[in-house]
Order: sequence, then C-alpha cells, then structure tokens
Amino acid sequence: MTGKTGMRTETDSFGPIEVAADRYWGAQTQRSLRNFRIGGERMPPALVRALGIQKKASALANMALEVLDPRLGRAIVEAAEEVIDGTLADHFPLVVWQTGSGTQTNMNANEVISNRAIEALGGEMGSKKPVHPNDHVNMGQSSNDSFPTAMHIAAAEQIHHELLPALEHLHAALAAKAAEFADIVKIGRTHLQDATPLTLGQEFSGYAAQIAYGIERVKASLPQLYRLAQGGTAVGTGLNAKTGFAEAFAAEVASITGLPFVTAENKFEALATHDALVDAHGSLNTLAVSLMKIANDIRLLGSGPRCGIGEIALPENEPGSSIMPGKVNPTQSEAMTMVCAQVMGNQTTVSIAGATGHFELNVFKPVIAYNVLQSIRLLADACNSFTDNAVVGIEANRERIGQLLNESLMLVTALNPHIGYDNAAKIAKKAHKEGTTLKQAGVALGLLTEEQFDQWVKPETMVKPR
Amino acid sequence: MTGKTGMRTETDSFGPIEVAADRYWGAQTQRSLRNFRIGGERMPPALVRALGIQKKASALANMALEVLDPRLGRAIVEAAEEVIDGTLADHFPLVVWQTGSGTQTNMNANEVISNRAIEALGGEMGSKKPVHPNDHVNMGQSSNDSFPTAMHIAAAEQIHHELLPALEHLHAALAAKAAEFADIVKIGRTHLQDATPLTLGQEFSGYAAQIAYGIERVKASLPQLYRLAQGGTAVGTGLNAKTGFAEAFAAEVASITGLPFVTAENKFEALATHDALVDAHGSLNTLAVSLMKIANDIRLLGSGPRCGIGEIALPENEPGSSIMPGKVNPTQSEAMTMVCAQVMGNQTTVSIAGATGHFELNVFKPVIAYNVLQSIRLLADACNSFTDNAVVGIEANRERIGQLLNESLMLVTALNPHIGYDNAAKIAKKAHKEGTTLKQAGVALGLLTEEQFDQWVKPETMVKPR
Amino acid sequence: MTGKTGMRTETDSFGPIEVAADRYWGAQTQRSLRNFRIGGERMPPALVRALGIQKKASALANMALEVLDPRLGRAIVEAAEEVIDGTLADHFPLVVWQTGSGTQTNMNANEVISNRAIEALGGEMGSKKPVHPNDHVNMGQSSNDSFPTAMHIAAAEQIHHELLPALEHLHAALAAKAAEFADIVKIGRTHLQDATPLTLGQEFSGYAAQIAYGIERVKASLPQLYRLAQGGTAVGTGLNAKTGFAEAFAAEVASITGLPFVTAENKFEALATHDALVDAHGSLNTLAVSLMKIANDIRLLGSGPRCGIGEIALPENEPGSSIMPGKVNPTQSEAMTMVCAQVMGNQTTVSIAGATGHFELNVFKPVIAYNVLQSIRLLADACNSFTDNAVVGIEANRERIGQLLNESLMLVTALNPHIGYDNAAKIAKKAHKEGTTLKQAGVALGLLTEEQFDQWVKPETMVKPR
Amino acid sequence: MTGKTGMRTETDSFGPIEVAADRYWGAQTQRSLRNFRIGGERMPPALVRALGIQKKASALANMALEVLDPRLGRAIVEAAEEVIDGTLADHFPLVVWQTGSGTQTNMNANEVISNRAIEALGGEMGSKKPVHPNDHVNMGQSSNDSFPTAMHIAAAEQIHHELLPALEHLHAALAAKAAEFADIVKIGRTHLQDATPLTLGQEFSGYAAQIAYGIERVKASLPQLYRLAQGGTAVGTGLNAKTGFAEAFAAEVASITGLPFVTAENKFEALATHDALVDAHGSLNTLAVSLMKIANDIRLLGSGPRCGIGEIALPENEPGSSIMPGKVNPTQSEAMTMVCAQVMGNQTTVSIAGATGHFELNVFKPVIAYNVLQSIRLLADACNSFTDNAVVGIEANRERIGQLLNESLMLVTALNPHIGYDNAAKIAKKAHKEGTTLKQAGVALGLLTEEQFDQWVKPETMVKPR
Repeated sequence: MTGKTGMRTETDSFGPIEVAADRYWGAQTQRSLRNFRIGGERMPPALVRALGIQKKASALANMALEVLDPRLGRAIVEAAEEVIDGTLADHFPLVVWQTGSGTQTNMNANEVISNRAIEALGGEMGSKKPVHPNDHVNMGQSSNDSFPTAMHIAAAEQIHHELLPALEHLHAALAAKAAEFADIVKIGRTHLQDATPLTLGQEFSGYAAQIAYGIERVKASLPQLYRLAQGGTAVGTGLNAKTGFAEAFAAEVASITGLPFVTAENKFEALATHDALVDAHGSLNTLAVSLMKIANDIRLLGSGPRCGIGEIALPENEPGSSIMPGKVNPTQSEAMTMVCAQVMGNQTTVSIAGATGHFELNVFKPVIAYNVLQSIRLLADACNSFTDNAVVGIEANRERIGQLLNESLMLVTALNPHIGYDNAAKIAKKAHKEGTTLKQAGVALGLLTEEQFDQWVKPETMVKPR
Repeated sequence: MTGKTGMRTETDSFGPIEVAADRYWGAQTQRSLRNFRIGGERMPPALVRALGIQKKASALANMALEVLDPRLGRAIVEAAEEVIDGTLADHFPLVVWQTGSGTQTNMNANEVISNRAIEALGGEMGSKKPVHPNDHVNMGQSSNDSFPTAMHIAAAEQIHHELLPALEHLHAALAAKAAEFADIVKIGRTHLQDATPLTLGQEFSGYAAQIAYGIERVKASLPQLYRLAQGGTAVGTGLNAKTGFAEAFAAEVASITGLPFVTAENKFEALATHDALVDAHGSLNTLAVSLMKIANDIRLLGSGPRCGIGEIALPENEPGSSIMPGKVNPTQSEAMTMVCAQVMGNQTTVSIAGATGHFELNVFKPVIAYNVLQSIRLLADACNSFTDNAVVGIEANRERIGQLLNESLMLVTALNPHIGYDNAAKIAKKAHKEGTTLKQAGVALGLLTEEQFDQWVKPETMVKPR
Repeated sequence: MTGKTGMRTETDSFGPIEVAADRYWGAQTQRSLRNFRIGGERMPPALVRALGIQKKASALANMALEVLDPRLGRAIVEAAEEVIDGTLADHFPLVVWQTGSGTQTNMNANEVISNRAIEALGGEMGSKKPVHPNDHVNMGQSSNDSFPTAMHIAAAEQIHHELLPALEHLHAALAAKAAEFADIVKIGRTHLQDATPLTLGQEFSGYAAQIAYGIERVKASLPQLYRLAQGGTAVGTGLNAKTGFAEAFAAEVASITGLPFVTAENKFEALATHDALVDAHGSLNTLAVSLMKIANDIRLLGSGPRCGIGEIALPENEPGSSIMPGKVNPTQSEAMTMVCAQVMGNQTTVSIAGATGHFELNVFKPVIAYNVLQSIRLLADACNSFTDNAVVGIEANRERIGQLLNESLMLVTALNPHIGYDNAAKIAKKAHKEGTTLKQAGVALGLLTEEQFDQWVKPETMVKPR
Repeated sequence: MTGKTGMRTETDSFGPIEVAADRYWGAQTQRSLRNFRIGGERMPPALVRALGIQKKASALANMALEVLDPRLGRAIVEAAEEVIDGTLADHFPLVVWQTGSGTQTNMNANEVISNRAIEALGGEMGSKKPVHPNDHVNMGQSSNDSFPTAMHIAAAEQIHHELLPALEHLHAALAAKAAEFADIVKIGRTHLQDATPLTLGQEFSGYAAQIAYGIERVKASLPQLYRLAQGGTAVGTGLNAKTGFAEAFAAEVASITGLPFVTAENKFEALATHDALVDAHGSLNTLAVSLMKIANDIRLLGSGPRCGIGEIALPENEPGSSIMPGKVNPTQSEAMTMVCAQVMGNQTTVSIAGATGHFELNVFKPVIAYNVLQSIRLLADACNSFTDNAVVGIEANRERIGQLLNESLMLVTALNPHIGYDNAAKIAKKAHKEGTTLKQAGVALGLLTEEQFDQWVKPETMVKPR
C-alpha cells in the first residue's frame, strides 16, 4: 500500500490518508496531527508507557479468556513491550490538546502496536491484517476506559518510582541536618520578629516533619489510583467486554507493575470523573505548599552574606550574577519555589478540568494527565536537586547564630513565671528603647538582681517545657 | 475603673484604653477594633467556640498539673463554657483581617473569660484580679499554639457535626435514586454525543460512588486535624508550659469534644505550617469538583421542559422568572455549583496562605480558618439543601427516555462482535445521513438481516458485559 | 390579608405563603429563605443599593417612555430611594447561594419596593395593588438584565468611591516616603543576597510605581463595567421592553450615579457572560500581587528588632504577643497579605464562575457579585488601614542602614569597568573567605591601590548610571 | 583549549569545566545543566529569540554610545541575529527550573554569542578573546534587567504575531456565522431551561462580541509590556550602564521589532515585580473564560445527533470512538476547553510567582515567562484550530430548530403585556401539565381567543424590543 516515495496509505472510517512509511502509526493518528496543531506539549512518556502496559495486559486477559487468537495475542504483547520500554517512543507524536477522551492517543497505541505486530507476523502495514487495531489490539476496550486506566497506571508508577524515593531522599537529608544541628541554640522568629530561642535542629525537625507527613499523604492518595476503569468500555456498562475481563486485566497490570491495582467497583464513576486524580493532586499541592515554606526559610536563613540573617551557609554551585562579581545565590531554593508555584497552578487546572465533565465521560483527560504527571515529575526532580545541591551542603554559621541570640530581647519571656508578663514587658521595652541589655534594664527597673537574671535567663534551658 | 458613662478603662502593655462597660473584652480587643477596620467578616462562630474549648481544656490541664489555683481555674472553666455554648457570642467582635497569628482573637478570648470570671468571683472588671487574662487564662499558652489548636478543633468539629452528616444524607438520596431507577434503560452520552445505553440507575450509581469516595476522603483527612499544636507555646519549644501540659491538654479536648485529639508530635511543624489544613481542604476541593459534576449533570438531564434533554424532572420549588411566566429553574443545582466555585477558589487562597509562612510561625492563620470553615459550612448546607429540595424529588421521565433511546444510532455498537467495527460504522453513517433507522440501513447495505438485527441489538442487554 | 398574629399572606404563581407582617418582602423572597438555607453570606449592601438605583432608573425611564402611570412611578421612585440610602436594608434577607440569576434578590427588590409603594399610596401590602412587583416595578425588565446591571453599578460605584481613593491614599504615602528617604543610600538585595546599593527612596519609589500602575489598571477596567445589560430582558433580545428603554435607562443611571454608564452594545454578551467582571477582577488580582510584594518587603525590612534586617521601624500599634512581653509585630502587613491571598483565590472563583455559563444566561451571578465586591472592599479597607497604621509611620533606621552598607561586598561591582568582572570577582571571593574588607583584599591581590579603591568605590555614586 | 576528544574547556569564576566542542555555550550554561536536572521544559524559543534581540540592541546601543569597539560590536550583532532567527536554537539547552533571575539563560546567550563572535573573528572558543561574554556581550547589562526585558519582548511579539491574528481570525468566523444565521429564529435557553426566542445569529453575535472585547483587552494590556527594564542593571539604579543606554536600547528594540517599546520609567518596579505580565495574563485568563463558554455552548448546541439539542452540526473531522462506530465528537471544543483550563491554572501560577518576589528582584522570572508564553501560544493555536476545524464548518439544522421553537412554552412571555404575568403563568403551567399547546391552554382557560393568540404570539417578532 506504499504510494508516493516514503509514504504509506492508511485507512479509517473516514477514508484513506497518507502516512510516512517509516512510522508505525495509522490513519487516526495522522488525522490528529492534521487537526490539532496546538502547542508543542506531547503526551508524557510515562503515559505512553502506561498505554503499553494497558495494551499488554488487555491482550493477556483476552487470551486467558480465550477470545483472542494466541498467535495474534503474542504479537500484540511483544509490540506492547516495545511501547513500554520506550523503543517506539518516536511513534507517539500527538500533543495533549486533542480529543478530550484521549481517543487519538489510544488509537495511536492501537495503530502502532497493530502495525508492529503485523510487521512481526510478516503482514503488510496498513492492511490491518492479521492484527486489526480496533478488533484485536483494542479488543473489549474503549478509549473511554483505556485512557483513564493508563492515567492511573502512569500516575501510580511515577509516584512510586520517582516521587516517593525523592521525598525519602529529601527527608533523610533534612533529618540528618536536624540531628547535626541539635545542640545549636538560636533565636526563634515569629512574625519575622525576634522571638524565644530554639535549636537549629528543632527548626530543621519541623521541615523534616513536613516532608514525613507529605510522604504519608502521597501514600494515602495511592489506593484510589489503584482502582482501574478498564472493563467499563464506552460508558461504564462493559458492553462488548467479556465478563471477567475487568478483573483479569487488573490482575495482569498488578503483575506487570508490581503495584496492587484492582478493578474499580463503579465504572461509571471511573469514566465520568477524575476525582481520584484531582484528589491525588491535592497531596501534590500540599507538598508544594510545604516545599515553598522550606525553600523560602532556607534562603532567608542563608541571606547575606553580610547584610541578611546569615545563620546558615548554602553550597556555592555556580556564579550568581552576570554583573556582580563573587555573588552566590540560593538558586536551588529558586528552582524549587518556581516548581511549587507551577504545581499550585496545576491544582487549579486539574480541579477545573475534573469539575467540567458531562454525563458518562469526562473529556479533559489529556490535560489532567499532563498536569498530574508534570507535577509529579517536577516535584520529584526538584526534591532530588534541592537535596543534593543544597540541603546536604548546608552549614551552620555558629558564630553569627550566637551573636544574634545574645543580642535578642525575647529572652525576656523566661522571666514571665518569675515576675509576670507585665513586668517582663516593661524590661523589654526599656531595653529596646535605650539600646541596652535586658539585664541592665531589669536591674535599673528594680525588678530583679543580676544574679536572678543570670539564673532565670538561660537560652539553653528555654528550648523545652519547664 | 468605669470612666465616662457606659465606658470602662482597660489596660495592656500599651497603656489604658476605653471599652464599653457592657462588653467583657479588654484592651487588646479594643485596640484591634481600632487598628483593623477591614471588611466585615468576623471570626467564624465555630472558631470562637473552639477557643472556648481550648481555654477550658487549658484550665483543666493546668489545675491537674497543680499550677493553677482551682478557685480561679473553676471560674475560668465556667466562663469558657459560656464561650463554647455561644452565650458570649456578642463579645467577639473582631474581624478576620487582623494579626496573622490570630493573637487578638486569642486575647479576645482571654480577656472575655478573665473579665467574666472576675465578675463571677466578685472582682472588678478590667482589674485583671483575681483572674489575669495572660497569667491565668492564657497560662502556659501562646497565641501561636492556642490559635492553631482552635483551628483544628473547629475544623474537625464542623466536619464531624455538619459536613459528614450532610454527605451521608446526600449519598443516601443518590443511592436510593440509583435503586429506584435501576431498570430504566436510557441512552448514554459521551462527548455530549449519543453513546451506548446504560440504566438511569447506573448513572446515579456513579454520583453515589463519587459521594461515597468523598466521604472516605474527608474522613481520611481527619487524623491530621486531630494533632494539636498546644504545648508548643511561642515557637514550638514549649517554653513556659509545664512538662506534661501538651498531653494533658489534648486529653481534655478529646474528652470535651468526643473526638480523638492528640498532641502533635512535632510542635515546630504545627505552629509554622498549616499543611494539615491545606491538605484537608484538598478533600473539600475534591468534593466541590464532584458536586459540580453531579449538579451540572442533573440540570442538563432535567433541561427543557420541551427543548432540552428532559430525561428527568426536578421538583418545582419557586417561580423561575420575573418575566417568563411558568418557568421553573434548576436553582438547587445553581446554588450548589456556585458553592463549588467558591470552594475551588478557597483552595487557591488556603494554598497561598499556607505556603507563605516564615520561620517559626505561619501568620495567615485567620484567613485559613475563615476559608476552611466557610468551605465546610457551604458544602454541608448546600448538600442538605440540594438533597432535600432537589435530589429526593427527582422523577424519571420514562416516556422521553424511551423515545430518545429508540432513536439513537449508537445501538450499532452491539454489532461490532458480529460484523466488525468498520461495517458497523458504515451502517451508522448511512442511517445518520439518510435519517433512517439502523435496521433499515443495515439491511440496505446487505450487512445483516432484520432478524439478525433484532436478535443482536437489544438495549436491555447492552448495559453489562457479555 | 394579615392572617395569624404578625403574619401577612403573600402570593406568587406557586400560591400563598406567610410573611412576617413587619417585613416588606413578598412570596418569592420568603420562598427563597425556605429553600436556600446555605451559609450566612447575605447579598452585599452595595449590590442591594445598586438594585435600588436600577429600579429607580427603570421607573424614570418607563415614565419618560409613557408606559408607566406617573402616580405609580413616583411611588416606586421614592421606595427605591429608600433602598438606595439603606433605610430598607433589613428587608433584604437573602443569601448569596440562591438561584444563579439572582432572580430572588431581584424579586426581593421588586416586592419590597412594591409593598412600600403600596403602603405609601394607601393600599394593602401583599395585594399587589396598585403597584404590582412584576408588572410595574419590574416593568420592561427581567432578572436576567436587571441583576447584571446592578452588578456593574455596584462594582463601578465601589471602585470609584472606595477603592480608588484608598489607592490614591496609599500611593501618596509611599511617594512621600520615597521623597523623605531619597538621600539614604543602602545596600540592595537580589536573590535575598547582598547586591549593589540604592537609596531607600528608590526602593519606595518602586512600591509607589506599583500602586500608580495599579490605579491605571483599575481605571482602565472601568469602561467595560459602564456597559449595562438593561434592556436585554430575558435572553438579550429586549422582548417586552419598549424600544428606547435601554438607552433611557442607562442615561438615568448615569445621572443618578454621576458615572458614565451606557447601554451595552451587545445584550447577548451582557447576559450570558460576565467577562467584564472577570476581567475587572484581573486588575484587582494584580493589585493583590503588588500589595503582597510591598507588604512582604516592608515586614522584612522591619524585621528584628535585633536579629533581622531592621533597616526600617514600623509603628507600634498593639502588644504583639500573649507570651512574649514587649514584642511588636508587623500586623498591618499581615492583615494586608491575608487580604491579598483572599483576592487571589477570589480570582479563581470568579474565573470558574464566569467560564461556566450556558447559552443565553450565566447563572453564577451572585457568587461573582459577592467575590468581586468582597475583593474591592477588602483591598480598599486594607489599603487605608495599611497606609494609616503602617506606611505613614515608617521610619528609617539610618544607623543600621549605614552599618550594613559598609560591610557589604557587592560594592565590588563598581570595579568592573576598571579591572574587569573576573578580577573583581577574585577580590569579592577573597574578602568573603577571609572576612576582610574589599579594599584589603584588592590591595593584597595587587589589583589596585588603596587610593584607586577609594576613588572607584563610592556607594553614593553607585545609585545611578555612569 | 580543546581537551579530550570532542570536549573544550570553558571557565568562569568557579573554575574550568568541560563542554562539548560542537556547542557554543560556556561554563555557566554547562554548570546549570549539571545543577538543575529538573523536568524537561526548556526555555521557550520565543524567549531565546527575544534574548537575541536584547543582545543585538545592547550592542547597537553600546556602539552608538561609543563604549563598545565596533569590530566586536558588529560580530556580536551578527551572532545575535543567528539567535533571533533560530539558527542557534540547539545551543540553548537550559530548562525553566533554574535560577529565578534567568541568569543562566542570560549567560547562555552571552556565552553562545561570545563564542560565535570569537569564531567569526578567528579567535579560540572558550578564550573569551576578543569577545568576552560579560564584558562585551553583557556590557552595561545585568541578567536582572536583561531577562525581564526579554520576557516583555517575547510576550509582546507573540501577542502581536500569534495571538491577535488568531483572535481576529476567530472573530471574523463568528461574525460571519452571526450574519449567516441572522434570520433563524430559535428557542432561547436560560438556566438550561426553555426561554423566549432569539435568532441563532444573535446567539453567535454574543460569541463574536466576547472575542471582540477580548481583542480590546489584549491590546489594552500591551502598553505595559512595551516598558522595558533594560538600563536598570543589577538593582534598578543603572550602575555600570552608561547614561542614555536605557533610552538608546529601547529605541533599537523598537526598530528591530517594529513595536513601540520604551524604557520603563521606574526601573526598580521593572526588576522587582512582574505586575505587568501578571496583569497581561489577566487578559489571557479572561479570554480563556470567554472561550470556555463559547466552546461549551457550541458542543451543547451540536449535541446529539439524535438525543441532544442538535440545533447545529459541527464538521466531522475524524472518527470519534474506538468502540462506537460512526460516532463523531466535538473534539475541537474539547481541545479548546482543555487549553482554557490550562490557562486558568497558569493564572494562579503567574499570580503566586508575581507576588513572591523580595526586595530588588523577583526571582520567579523563568516560571512566569514559561506560563505566559505557554498561555499565549495555546490560546493562539487553539483559536486557529477551533476556527478552521470547527467554526467555519458549523451548519444550522433549521428543521430541528423550528421543531423545538414551536414546541416551546416560553412563547407565553409575549402575552405578558396583554393579559399580565400571572395569567400568562397559568396558561404555561396548564399546557406543561397537560402536554398541550399554549393556545389550547389559553383558550381553555378563557383568557384569550385563538385569534388573539395568533396575533400576539409571533416568535419572529419576539427577538427585539417592542
């Protein structure tokens, strides 16, 4: 069927269309390329991989249910494995901004696998024989259940293989710093104003706790992603799928991925909504909120070197300025906070997309997949980069910390139990106004003796309850 | 200390200030009224109640730890109970837009309880004797741990007592409709286009599943709210609180509320961040996304009465138009979707507020409290209103449903296993183009006989797998 | 028609319903109270006032067009004026979360004005004679054009009378500080790291410029709000309105308000969308972004008093801590940034609401009105509070500023034109590493003499181009 | 300086680093590649092009000011032109998630242009002689003014060359449909319920008006983008730039681009904030809101083919279903609404990024550039695709439109002026309840005669004011 040099004729229910001879895709993919010249954001590789898993599991389930000829089935499985391992990546050219069910990318997978299997079986590409993209590769499936299934597989895999390890990596680094800095008493700050002391280790323990809870939250969001839509076919009823296909399919996916996927109890919910992904993105959004706080604190603590807070020193990774020689900037905090802003905006996108489905199908699937997978990847990569290029190299500037601690007025709080809040306030205000120490002000006001002050105000005893 | 008629002099570390004699609040509350004339949104009643619980539990814990004179402690408890039950509601005049730690509202509670207890003990209001707002009511506390504690108590109580019952109510109504409509076969719609059939009951089962998952998600977000910041005092170290106070306090709150509150493991995280509330709001956001979809579907299914889809009829609750006589509108869907838009925007607000804390304290506490509690209340109320005034009264328009089902072309999908996708597509296209039935088109194309068509295309068998 | 004690019977097309005898509202308002028990957020007073203006202008236009009996018309005008001036505020009890067209609040206005006019004309309330709420007060109108008209009037009035004066007030205060601080050379900070110097006045000039541009943006958003939907009636066609009504009405509104309102060119756009309000809120969102930056900078510049940056001192307005005596916090910045977070979330709400209309009518009108008017009020109030309680009282801490400037390493940038970027970088790095001055490092490296350093590095000459 | 095969040694103030010999970039670019392995989103080509323009204009201005040797300057200009025209695209490998000032991408441009110019002048790449990346290519500049300048240039160019033409294209198509459908009277719908009639042309005129206003809004957002930061150098003061450089530079950019760029009045605002881009994105957000509404309406009007509204037919561009043969879906509406959801989320990202700058520099520049340019491109492409593949091919289904119009009950509104609202309501309710026509119900109620009905109720007269 190859027509003019280097082209092949493919067909669909709209008729024939020319495709480059060295591409495995077929008519519907080609038509999508023509009809959707929008942006340049291609379907994420993690999603294409997940579609490979989805097609492989379908073929295995259909063979087990004895509705698919094993000769064809095996060829489909082998072609699908090339999609999974990325060998066929260049044959998935479609962008995110296409049909809202992801139908064209599902057909892209069906077409590529069909042609690759045809080739392996010695047939003619484009002939749809002996492996038909719809009748065999898509057997018992619809884009409407296949694409959301792939979305769940991709998100769960990426969370498992990318995000959680990155979060554990960051958590370990923060916890190590919390231990390393456990004995360094420093001034606390509330409202950006000097407050009572704590240790630098306690401060980092808060960051570590944020990430520990973040890991808990991400893990808690996984079970809903393990529920697969497959078996619902076009509208959730399972029309044209064989009884048992949904369960057999989910078991195959669990086997392939090593993750505990199951078939969704209610397929109508699974096709018509993406509440599970919206909710899982909520955990990513919380992570972004946590990381924004941590990265901000770290660049503020490291501000200076001479005119800021300067309590910690960040590693110097690159020249900081094209005009100011010798400047070193907290660039890892900057990359991280930019990622956080992106993820927080992605939450808005995903929520709008999730809320705007109609009847039996949500048709914002590609944009949801794109945003969820972008958020996962950016958070994972940014956590690794931030850990390796910033956190592990943080050093405490003990001299500066000690100097600030001793100048602070908020050590006065330790006097409350001894002389009462109102008297303590008088001392602090007098010292602030006159630029003296608290001790001097307290003695001048006759509220305590030097000895009492030294006995009552010990920063190192102020970092825990009485 | 009452000065000019009807005024009383109160004092704080800034000096004296006049307060209306019939108000229990003191100097810091009055100063806040003067300094923050912003908007009209007062601190939510649920939060004021929670501060009453927080003050009561603090007094009980301090008495148990033998640091608070029981005579004063009992007076504090009694006054706090009047805050809890709302008796003193008019004495909490402050707006949301104040100090970001909620200090002024914490002091409002301290002052009101102190003066009310002073009154009960026969003292002079404003004298701070024998019950001092800081030294006794706020004993062992800081706004920085008290206010976030109250935020968690308020959110958890409102979720338990308002939101979850409302969601259960809605879920039961949707599940009842799913059962009631279980046998009504109707046309499915994907991409807003006619698709293969399902039952109206299956459609409603999807909505019910969304709410069931929503209930799961909200419940799963509760444990993080049960962790209380109290005991961290100013910066998380617990300075000036007695060892054991945090645990004793949490036990008292659990006892008062009947909810399993515990002391937070890491108080630095608990003061400096509101990740728990941001994350809990993520579940509310998912609910908004779910409810937007359900309410939209229901008004679309009920559109008409003659020029829309018209498959269901919604209860008529009020005249619909000031100009079009006899018009009845899906107003409960409208109220619900407006609530959803609000909650989705509140997610943005809460996320920004949560991400923008510095060092030992997040100072966006009031705006977070306001938005989280607004989202909870609006969702709860809207679910009740939507259930009672719309869902329970939904009726299926069986005649219309049957008429549309029979006209549909997508029944052709049942032919795929018999004649293949491509042939089935030819039939559908011919029927669509010529305005005929599928059967006529199929026979004309010679692809099947009338008998085969009747045997293969049975809508009632198309609502489940083969 | 008064039935049981204190009640009056009102009727609508749904039949009779009891209303409290001392309330002017009628059946549809009462029905809404019963059907929408959601939240507590009432229709904003600015919107109720605008509906009064809308009804007055309608009556005047209808009288001028000779379709409304002047005796009834004059009574309507007088009652509407009592709505405008707030006298009848207690007769508008409805919440935001009602029908999405605002029909019930439009009917609330029609009913209150009708009953008040009936009363004035000696009729019986509830009789709809001689002034019928639909036929006379709502003459030639629909909720669908009346409510969006009121939304535009309310937003434009609030921007003019509240927001713009508050912005001008803030701008003047910032510009005055820019002038006051014009000669104070200080260290600049980029990436939170020490950079080349500028004057404190230049820094404040940036804030002033932000607000100046903000004022421009808000003003530029007004013309679209001056376009009024009135005259479109139910679907934009103007059915049942008299030709000329739309233009006459807009002229009356312009006359009443003193603002240049005109009739919208395309009434279909004006009913079915709220693009104009979404876009106008975009200007409010930009203001929130600007104000967040300014308020953050100011609290960071004022951080301390001893362990922060401390270049400026903010006014002390209230005690800052319930546990730390003498603490003073940047509470006006906190209130402002909370307002900004709210407004940025409101942008999401308004955008979703604006995007989700169908066909001839957007039915998210009340939630859009609520959010736009909340944003305007909060921004206006917060600007006034921030100006009066923070900006005007800011003082420069010249001693601290001078000390930091002289310690900085980034003065090295002045050497670039003389010894090149790479050599200058060597000096900065050596000084940083060894804790010396730049001069010492430069001389030690043999890159310049002391005299050259003193001649080339003069901070006061570094605050402008060569 | 080429070391091991295929590598070249480059240096910066951090020391030497190996770079692939066939790449023009230098040490700082290479260091960024190593330190920021985050995501895969590269700096947008439009931004790289804008940096080319920025470097060319800088060299021209510096030559005109006689501070740059013309021999070097001409080589810089020629190399910059290769950046502008995309020839050197492969030499800009950096991702968005890097330093928040875009310094590394600015240095990427400086390094590539420097090495390319060195090559052209016969020098050795990496030697920085005779063209130094900082001293010559970046002469009188800082990343802090260069990068925001490039952001404005890129956004303004893309809006001019991509977005505005696409919007004009869509507007023309919608206006043409409004004219084509001017005589087709159809039922209106409010609240998704049948309402009074309008013409299909009027409905499309509303869409056209939305886009016309959108064009106005986008144009109105341009002047703030024409203000360029260049000349502010590191912190806004212009240190190390020659007096007159800012103005000369802006004139060169205006000349190169043909757009009226000017130098920003206040450089402190221009470096420290991106209010202008946040605000310009507000116009993009409004466009997204408008387009979401239009695309939704169009797919709803085209819903069916037999079980929806079906008043219009959309072009059939591709097979719609992998399981349902013959199905055609409104895929252009789906792509468009996904784009709108993305842009609405990008607004949140851009707002957060804009609000979170500190002191003299906003360090969320790359993420703002990425989102603004993505929104522009997606909106432009989607408008073109939607126009060409959907709007121009829309056909009215006159038969269906007529059938629905005649069945409607809301024609009853035409009776209001003749028999009053309450009587008209009775007719509508009776006809609805009994399934009769309005005429039958009206006559049966004795409220009018057949002749009166025919005279009063004429849909074609109901599409304008009386």
